[in-house]
Amino acid sequence: MAEQSHLESVITLAQHRGFVFPSGDIYGGTRSAWDYGPLGVELKENIKRQWWNAFVRGRGDMVGLDSAVILPTPVWEASGHVKVFSDPLTESLITHKRYRADHLFEAYEAEHGHPPENGLADIPDPEHPSKIGQWTEIRQMSGLLKTFLGVVDDESGLHYLRPETAQGIFTNFANVLQTARKKPPFGIGQIGKAFRNEITPGNFIFRTREFEQMEIEFFVEPGTDDEWQQTWMDLCWAWFIDLGMTPDNIRWFEHPQEKLAHYSKRTVDIEYKFGFAGSEWGELMGVANRTDYDLKVHAEQSGKDLSYFDQAKNERYMPFVIEPSFGLTRALMAFLVDAYEEQELPPNAKGKIEKRTVLHLDPRLAPVKVAVLPLSRNEALSPLARQIGDELRGSWNIDFDDSGAIGRRYRRQDEIGTPFCVTVDFDSLEDNAVTVRDRDSMQQERVAIDELYAYLATRLKGA
Amino acid sequence: MAEQSHLESVITLAQHRGFVFPSGDIYGGTRSAWDYGPLGVELKENIKRQWWNAFVRGRGDMVGLDSAVILPTPVWEASGHVKVFSDPLTESLITHKRYRADHLFEAYEAEHGHPPENGLADIPDPEHPSKIGQWTEIRQMSGLLKTFLGVVDDESGLHYLRPETAQGIFTNFANVLQTARKKPPFGIGQIGKAFRNEITPGNFIFRTREFEQMEIEFFVEPGTDDEWQQTWMDLCWAWFIDLGMTPDNIRWFEHPQEKLAHYSKRTVDIEYKFGFAGSEWGELMGVANRTDYDLKVHAEQSGKDLSYFDQAKNERYMPFVIEPSFGLTRALMAFLVDAYEEQELPPNAKGKIEKRTVLHLDPRLAPVKVAVLPLSRNEALSPLARQIGDELRGSWNIDFDDSGAIGRRYRRQDEIGTPFCVTVDFDSLEDNAVTVRDRDSMQQERVAIDELYAYLATRLKGA
Repeated sequence: MAEQSHLESVITLAQHRGFVFPSGDIYGGTRSAWDYGPLGVELKENIKRQWWNAFVRGRGDMVGLDSAVILPTPVWEASGHVKVFSDPLTESLITHKRYRADHLFEAYEAEHGHPPENGLADIPDPEHPSKIGQWTEIRQMSGLLKTFLGVVDDESGLHYLRPETAQGIFTNFANVLQTARKKPPFGIGQIGKAFRNEITPGNFIFRTREFEQMEIEFFVEPGTDDEWQQTWMDLCWAWFIDLGMTPDNIRWFEHPQEKLAHYSKRTVDIEYKFGFAGSEWGELMGVANRTDYDLKVHAEQSGKDLSYFDQAKNERYMPFVIEPSFGLTRALMAFLVDAYEEQELPPNAKGKIEKRTVLHLDPRLAPVKVAVLPLSRNEALSPLARQIGDELRGSWNIDFDDSGAIGRRYRRQDEIGTPFCVTVDFDSLEDNAVTVRDRDSMQQERVAIDELYAYLATRLKGA
Repeated sequence: MAEQSHLESVITLAQHRGFVFPSGDIYGGTRSAWDYGPLGVELKENIKRQWWNAFVRGRGDMVGLDSAVILPTPVWEASGHVKVFSDPLTESLITHKRYRADHLFEAYEAEHGHPPENGLADIPDPEHPSKIGQWTEIRQMSGLLKTFLGVVDDESGLHYLRPETAQGIFTNFANVLQTARKKPPFGIGQIGKAFRNEITPGNFIFRTREFEQMEIEFFVEPGTDDEWQQTWMDLCWAWFIDLGMTPDNIRWFEHPQEKLAHYSKRTVDIEYKFGFAGSEWGELMGVANRTDYDLKVHAEQSGKDLSYFDQAKNERYMPFVIEPSFGLTRALMAFLVDAYEEQELPPNAKGKIEKRTVLHLDPRLAPVKVAVLPLSRNEALSPLARQIGDELRGSWNIDFDDSGAIGRRYRRQDEIGTPFCVTVDFDSLEDNAVTVRDRDSMQQERVAIDELYAYLATRLKGA
């Protein structure tokens, strides 16, 4: 069997250890969406919380919002999504599998250094690379998921699931201005689900039909937009680095002018080196200059004035919008891939070289902060260990594990990225102290039980 | 104009101060869903966090989960939702408005003390109480919202938006058992959106088509289920009381045996006294004994063994499930209604009696924890106040307000439930101290700036 790639190993670990399960697993699963297990939901919540604290609560020029998934249909007519939010679809006449034509072209160009001369006709079938591809004509397929509200499934009840959280922010711009006493430059942040009818969901949790976004719409005076875009690019980059992302594994991608979305003056992505087969890098987030496009179209369509009157300057203008838009589930995947290491340990006393798998997650992101491990299942050790676990549980997510050899239990915690293991041993009953093991250095330190909380609190600051 | 009821006053405040906006407000709004503004999203997040800490992270016998909104269709066939999740619909032939027949019957019975003798025919039209109602025949309307995944809008792509988060837990029961080293009695908690095609959304955020739930499925050995149901009833009641809910405003409602859902052995709700026109009380959460119904049907339908083997007892059984299910958005509404007070203040120096509106939210729930207020907009005061605000912002959600008379600013903070106002005055420049005002007592205390963080941290513990 071929050796697993780094990415494949991470996916295997994520599924085996309860980070991510195929959605509806017992019914065969689906590629449309994934379920987040006990560790995945904690990791995801921790990313959300760090993001919210850094970009919303932590800034005087930001407020939060949580708008609905199903907005009134005119929102999506005004934004342009009903008309232009679509992907080019083609079907292989050989396998009857469906593909995004733009993805086929990109793959061809990456391999040959130039686009195909005769369009689709030049592109071989991905499942039969030796055969000349046979393709249906390209047609546009809407990325919007429909639903029907009300009594009958007809056009009168037609609604869409939001394909981005952004529009819920634009439609509330005036409400927020009025109630939150903010004025440009200021922004509105939102975390929430979005839905897109992807033609080819895949690459684990990278491309799914149901996903989560963390979006900011930052409203600025026209003319200051280029500078603010740079500011937000710097802030976003710094956020990943601060949370431990390896700088070599992220890079900027500047969207070429001719391929910009209809609303964008400039868009720059941060890409992560996921290591996908074919193309290694994948989009993690983007910072777009959406200009005044969205506020303008909503003002026109709704008849409501969405401009801002600057009293100090006695000037009225339609704000420009800088949009840092993060894929939450993509960020989670990137943090996992980045943290994963298969490590060869120095030879032990018997000269044997052991391996361990470790997730070097930043302690603020780690799903379990501390594991409490009684050295053995024992009438004296277990109650003390449980008591320690229960006390720490008021402050952090704690694991308690009393099954198996202690070395194996350390490995288990390493694999899920637990920064600290607290071992309760027979000496603990005498000296009222425990051994604290550090995940990364594997160094062990003896800590008095009544100093344990303070010891951990210092090392888990901000977690 | 008639005076506003307590409930109407709360709704007015919630909309005026940015807790809740009509979804798609600039397009006329919708009753299907609401958007949560800067204060609403913070309040909602705080409720979630308290719930998660109390019931998931805080308990050694619980883990979390986050499953998808759009699960494979067989999940909803097995659970019975495709067949039986529906409401009885009737339409008034006079106004052509649609009603839930069961609601019409309940309202009639509440007024007359007995059900109508001739069914619908006896029930007057709600909009024309003097007229005898004219009704279409009752038909069952599915509460499931449909969507279509994939290339064509046909039955092959038919999926449903989940009407409850619970089923995503049942379908992951075996995955969690395997990866999380848990055994009954243990539970899985989940917070997330759910969607129901309500015939008559209304009562502000109480009944909407898009809403959020906080659900626990707690798996126990058959025979211990009655006792565990009581334990969870006690825990849920205590959670509301601990967060400041007035005991007189909540009550138990035992579902009569003959009206139980098809899966339930016993269901008991906590109702809150919302003060709706017609019926004052509304469901806040319920604790249901779902027996082994769900695991059984999923095991049958999927062919997967979902029983649990108890090694200690050498026994295999299908766990019974106790389900504490909270409406998150209903909890938010109840906390707001419960916290709201229009207070007459003692006469001031001039003998004038003033009023204030105050939200007595528990500090852990309050959307803004501290407001920093420079006494006046001034070159010396503002920078100091901003500096204090920026330092506190690392720990809590902070408001900064320098516009208007200080008394008015206190009122503004009282209205949104901010527990502490920190006023920076000219003395502050000399004595390096600020005045801290308590929301409920309105007492003011002078606190040294370098002790401010510790002073607030003590009073905002757990927030």
